Amino acid sequence: MMKGIEMSISVSIVGGSGYSGGELLRLLIAHPYVTVKQVTSRSHVGEYVYQVHPNLRKRTQLKFVEPAQIEAVDVLFLALPHGQAQTRIGEYAALAGKIIDLSADFRLRDATLYERWYGEAHAAPEWLDKFVYGLPELHRAEIAAADYVSGVGCNATASNLALLPLVKADILDRSTPVIIEIKVGSSEAGAEGNLGSHHAERANVIRTFSAFGHRHTAEVIQEMGVQDVSLTMTAVDVVRGVLATVHGKVKPGTTAKDLWKAYRAAANDNLFIRVVKEQRGVYRAPEPKVLVGSNYADLGFELDESNGHVVSICAIDNLMKGAAGSAVQCLNLMMGWQETTALEFMGLHPL
Amino acid sequence: MMKGIEMSISVSIVGGSGYSGGELLRLLIAHPYVTVKQVTSRSHVGEYVYQVHPNLRKRTQLKFVEPAQIEAVDVLFLALPHGQAQTRIGEYAALAGKIIDLSADFRLRDATLYERWYGEAHAAPEWLDKFVYGLPELHRAEIAAADYVSGVGCNATASNLALLPLVKADILDRSTPVIIEIKVGSSEAGAEGNLGSHHAERANVIRTFSAFGHRHTAEVIQEMGVQDVSLTMTAVDVVRGVLATVHGKVKPGTTAKDLWKAYRAAANDNLFIRVVKEQRGVYRAPEPKVLVGSNYADLGFELDESNGHVVSICAIDNLMKGAAGSAVQCLNLMMGWQETTALEFMGLHPL
Amino acid sequence: MMKGIEMSISVSIVGGSGYSGGELLRLLIAHPYVTVKQVTSRSHVGEYVYQVHPNLRKRTQLKFVEPAQIEAVDVLFLALPHGQAQTRIGEYAALAGKIIDLSADFRLRDATLYERWYGEAHAAPEWLDKFVYGLPELHRAEIAAADYVSGVGCNATASNLALLPLVKADILDRSTPVIIEIKVGSSEAGAEGNLGSHHAERANVIRTFSAFGHRHTAEVIQEMGVQDVSLTMTAVDVVRGVLATVHGKVKPGTTAKDLWKAYRAAANDNLFIRVVKEQRGVYRAPEPKVLVGSNYADLGFELDESNGHVVSICAIDNLMKGAAGSAVQCLNLMMGWQETTALEFMGLHPL
Amino acid sequence: MMKGIEMSISVSIVGGSGYSGGELLRLLIAHPYVTVKQVTSRSHVGEYVYQVHPNLRKRTQLKFVEPAQIEAVDVLFLALPHGQAQTRIGEYAALAGKIIDLSADFRLRDATLYERWYGEAHAAPEWLDKFVYGLPELHRAEIAAADYVSGVGCNATASNLALLPLVKADILDRSTPVIIEIKVGSSEAGAEGNLGSHHAERANVIRTFSAFGHRHTAEVIQEMGVQDVSLTMTAVDVVRGVLATVHGKVKPGTTAKDLWKAYRAAANDNLFIRVVKEQRGVYRAPEPKVLVGSNYADLGFELDESNGHVVSICAIDNLMKGAAGSAVQCLNLMMGWQETTALEFMGLHPL
Repeated sequence: MMKGIEMSISVSIVGGSGYSGGELLRLLIAHPYVTVKQVTSRSHVGEYVYQVHPNLRKRTQLKFVEPAQIEAVDVLFLALPHGQAQTRIGEYAALAGKIIDLSADFRLRDATLYERWYGEAHAAPEWLDKFVYGLPELHRAEIAAADYVSGVGCNATASNLALLPLVKADILDRSTPVIIEIKVGSSEAGAEGNLGSHHAERANVIRTFSAFGHRHTAEVIQEMGVQDVSLTMTAVDVVRGVLATVHGKVKPGTTAKDLWKAYRAAANDNLFIRVVKEQRGVYRAPEPKVLVGSNYADLGFELDESNGHVVSICAIDNLMKGAAGSAVQCLNLMMGWQETTALEFMGLHPL
Repeated sequence: MMKGIEMSISVSIVGGSGYSGGELLRLLIAHPYVTVKQVTSRSHVGEYVYQVHPNLRKRTQLKFVEPAQIEAVDVLFLALPHGQAQTRIGEYAALAGKIIDLSADFRLRDATLYERWYGEAHAAPEWLDKFVYGLPELHRAEIAAADYVSGVGCNATASNLALLPLVKADILDRSTPVIIEIKVGSSEAGAEGNLGSHHAERANVIRTFSAFGHRHTAEVIQEMGVQDVSLTMTAVDVVRGVLATVHGKVKPGTTAKDLWKAYRAAANDNLFIRVVKEQRGVYRAPEPKVLVGSNYADLGFELDESNGHVVSICAIDNLMKGAAGSAVQCLNLMMGWQETTALEFMGLHPL
Repeated sequence: MMKGIEMSISVSIVGGSGYSGGELLRLLIAHPYVTVKQVTSRSHVGEYVYQVHPNLRKRTQLKFVEPAQIEAVDVLFLALPHGQAQTRIGEYAALAGKIIDLSADFRLRDATLYERWYGEAHAAPEWLDKFVYGLPELHRAEIAAADYVSGVGCNATASNLALLPLVKADILDRSTPVIIEIKVGSSEAGAEGNLGSHHAERANVIRTFSAFGHRHTAEVIQEMGVQDVSLTMTAVDVVRGVLATVHGKVKPGTTAKDLWKAYRAAANDNLFIRVVKEQRGVYRAPEPKVLVGSNYADLGFELDESNGHVVSICAIDNLMKGAAGSAVQCLNLMMGWQETTALEFMGLHPL
Repeated sequence: MMKGIEMSISVSIVGGSGYSGGELLRLLIAHPYVTVKQVTSRSHVGEYVYQVHPNLRKRTQLKFVEPAQIEAVDVLFLALPHGQAQTRIGEYAALAGKIIDLSADFRLRDATLYERWYGEAHAAPEWLDKFVYGLPELHRAEIAAADYVSGVGCNATASNLALLPLVKADILDRSTPVIIEIKVGSSEAGAEGNLGSHHAERANVIRTFSAFGHRHTAEVIQEMGVQDVSLTMTAVDVVRGVLATVHGKVKPGTTAKDLWKAYRAAANDNLFIRVVKEQRGVYRAPEPKVLVGSNYADLGFELDESNGHVVSICAIDNLMKGAAGSAVQCLNLMMGWQETTALEFMGLHPL
């Protein structure tokens, strides 16, 4: 394949009945240079994809096929539950020259780190080095040159993008613990329900379900180089959305002006990053409500100059920038296409 | 037992881990003349009831017991899934002189009607006559004299109470079809989740899941004596609450003044019925939002005098007036106690 | 202007700070053949449009201008509160050869009908004949030839599209009253808050705020030719979405098969109409949840063959198919462009 | 008045149309030893209180009176907007021997602290010493002996109760900053709407509206004796509820066992404190969802023993334990009544 030529390529999705897979399908169906060839699902074989993802009705006549029926394509997307891609990565690599895996299987470079956070040895540690961590805002050039790209954890993405301006401008005091408070919607937990996701139990919640030890912490440690970091997870009553509120300390002498400069630089360098810091109106700081369906990451901050306490805020749609959106953005980079292709949707107001 | 004496009686609940059973438990724990002896649950044996119903923490140290362990009591409440009570009603009757069954098993007097709506023959048709339909607003005196009282369908209750003033004043034109539109919250579907009740699928819905044929229709036919009646069910994004909007025709010459008289009479006759029909303010008509946790049924109406089209509205909390609240109200009547005992909670504003 | 040539035209929006105006702006900014020249707002002059509509950040640097500053353009959109467009229609017509007015001012053809439903005489009755009712599914050819096109009432649109297959196939018994139950989200009431729209009062509602007499009824009477029709309005806890559940009677002998045929014809004739009638899965009938941000109208039906009672259901996004989406669809028709241009967004799952 | 005698006293509420005033009214109407004499409201004079607080219909025929009409009573409750009580406290004290003020006017003991956080000098600094801070869990004995009791800030209350076990057991390392993340519902902002509280703008939010500097911080500083403390406020889509997630460090050597001991002691000493820390089930940690309408404060914690990072969690209903509930609890103490009188409601499951 020649890069940059806007020819149509073929792609397939392994694991297309979940929420990340469905979102990927929505984006790829509308992608001008992509033809979706196959979508697999163990539990929905033979059903139209729109019977599971009702928004796709009248837009595609694709039906789910069995995983075993998957054929060779230009690019293969994997959207399987955690732990499955690593056991068959060799088979998938035989089907496609390029793979984008949305699961957690190939996000960490270090098999030891993986084992510490996932509680078991990695099944294909020799593959870890071959994958690039799939967040373009951190690894744009490497992704453009890669054949194998991982997905990103949605909570890790909100955390990493909140930290990005501080780390890049080197104004974060890394000797002070970084405390990250994350609020999430219900789609983050996936399409498989459990008792806690039953509407009558899950509606109206403010539920801190994990104070420490969330697995996405490993991606923050790896990508941001901060060691003393914790993610506290609280579920709230929305379907889509992640808000990360990051508490840290800036280096002595850092001013609000320095922060403005750092955040503006992040927005200038990245088409999907916006700075939201208004003095008036309803929408003064980043919030996921206005990002539903879009690939933007909105960043904001507040600084207490008296003690250097910085609060950095990042809002994303967990299924977009935190999963399928970043994956398509990686595809665009890998193919040499305009980075925003098929990711133009700008979110809705009101919602 | 002597009636009207406010001595403490013992009660048990068969099936206490569901939503109706849990609500019943909440009411009975706070009931001044009742001691809850046992609560059964197949799936939670040995757990504290507050581990399933977290609002009960620090209020009771009861643990769930196996159904087989149930012992004799003064009054036995059955809160089992549909179809189970009728297969063992004899056993239960051997344990308690008085039974209040919240399920649909003994609501219909006519085994034929039961079979038509439930699609199978009743397992204990000889018991149907022994039960009184447990809506005090319709059968106060019979309930007070009864040993066996059925529960009520929550949608049927909202429908029947909306129709009550019209039927009682005999101003409903029964030759015109009665069309009932019902909007319901997610708790109505019970504590057992399914894919459709998964928060990400159930949030934000306006979902008409049944246009015709809802089983509660049978209770409207039986209790209101209307034959041509349909219930159309739409799920909306609340946990508790039923709103029935009933469309019918009044007899020629009926005025708004006649309707006012009929509705006020219903409120005067029944402590838990209120008429809501304001000209100003936010809360001009009945709505379930203000009834959460309370046993009130709020009624309202509009009449198009040009054609006799009446819209009668009833709002209730499906777990209270539509289930556990009416059941405790029946208990109070059966025991000769003040009808409102343990049902004084007045709902919350705002919520 | 030559039709069908995909040259860029200039448009402006009078009244761009409300919800319909904002949605229009979102669509037009992304429209490939349109340049938005000006957007007016009395209360936000000088502010960036993205300060009011935060989803537009980084997509446009437009600022709100005063209404008096409006200049000549190819097509002028009016998104003013009801009653304002009719007082200045002459001025607007002097600025642009083509006008699309989203308000209720020019929807009715008959000044008498207008006065009956809006309670006052129309200020420019001579203009009523010049406008075409802007629902392409009803008036595609006339819109394509028109210079002046009205908007549509969102509730009227859901009602009219639910009735469309029945009326077109002439299987609706017009001698029986048509009862329409409509459930709506909060964005329908516009961007101006009131006490009843305060979140603590508006959340969790099932609030029947109008039993009869909603003004959109006039559009159903005019467009569908049914005389005995009522719209009962109930507010529920979503932001976007309208579901119309229409109760009527079919002509004797009409079968479910006839209905299938009628509904499929509607979907075949109209790119934005889909039939949703599944036997399994979560999404068996139309629901607005899956339509947020999209221009689709989903239709479904149930028939009680025993008595001819038909329930026809239509779901739309009130700001899209019920307002801005239909307006842009009209623009596309008026300009000879592909009808779906800038309206490709397919909605989200889950949401 | 003799204490401890369960005679009926008279009370009035100045400012009864807001949410705290309405909740107070709900509690006092049902209080067995209290008669509510008058309720004032400037904007609703002459209206029934149930026209504003629809849950009170059929429970009281009280009408709002003008503030100037207020008469002498045994106990006067003030539920005015911030800043008003301090300007007339002398007048109110002439009307009643005992005053409970729910506003922020008399919460701080130090006029300097008041000025720092409220940005203006206190109008009646000589009264600050006469008031006791109205949180029984901190000042039970003083409240019982007091004539003047202040209200509490809802966010301060969740924060203070989360810190209480750590401070009381003296295991909090006060040299490390305390970072408090608070999530709140919409009722916290009061009954007066603004553009940001408009449902379409306020629904579905995860909105960090204040990173530093919330006024309730002053109450945490005063009551907990921690100096380096910040409250970060995030609005979420519920009506009632506050969840405070408090990040701090325990003193070296502190174990999870020590924490268990400290938290259990808090629950043993206080009837309205519960410890929620389960290993299984849906409700493993405190959450406001199960506390709606109740006066409980649920506490939980997690400790990272590797670094001493403690996360302490407190959930309350902001209108109950965070306002009217604590006020009635204070009344009970002041009168020598059982502390839980009229506060027995246990919350709802599900909701």
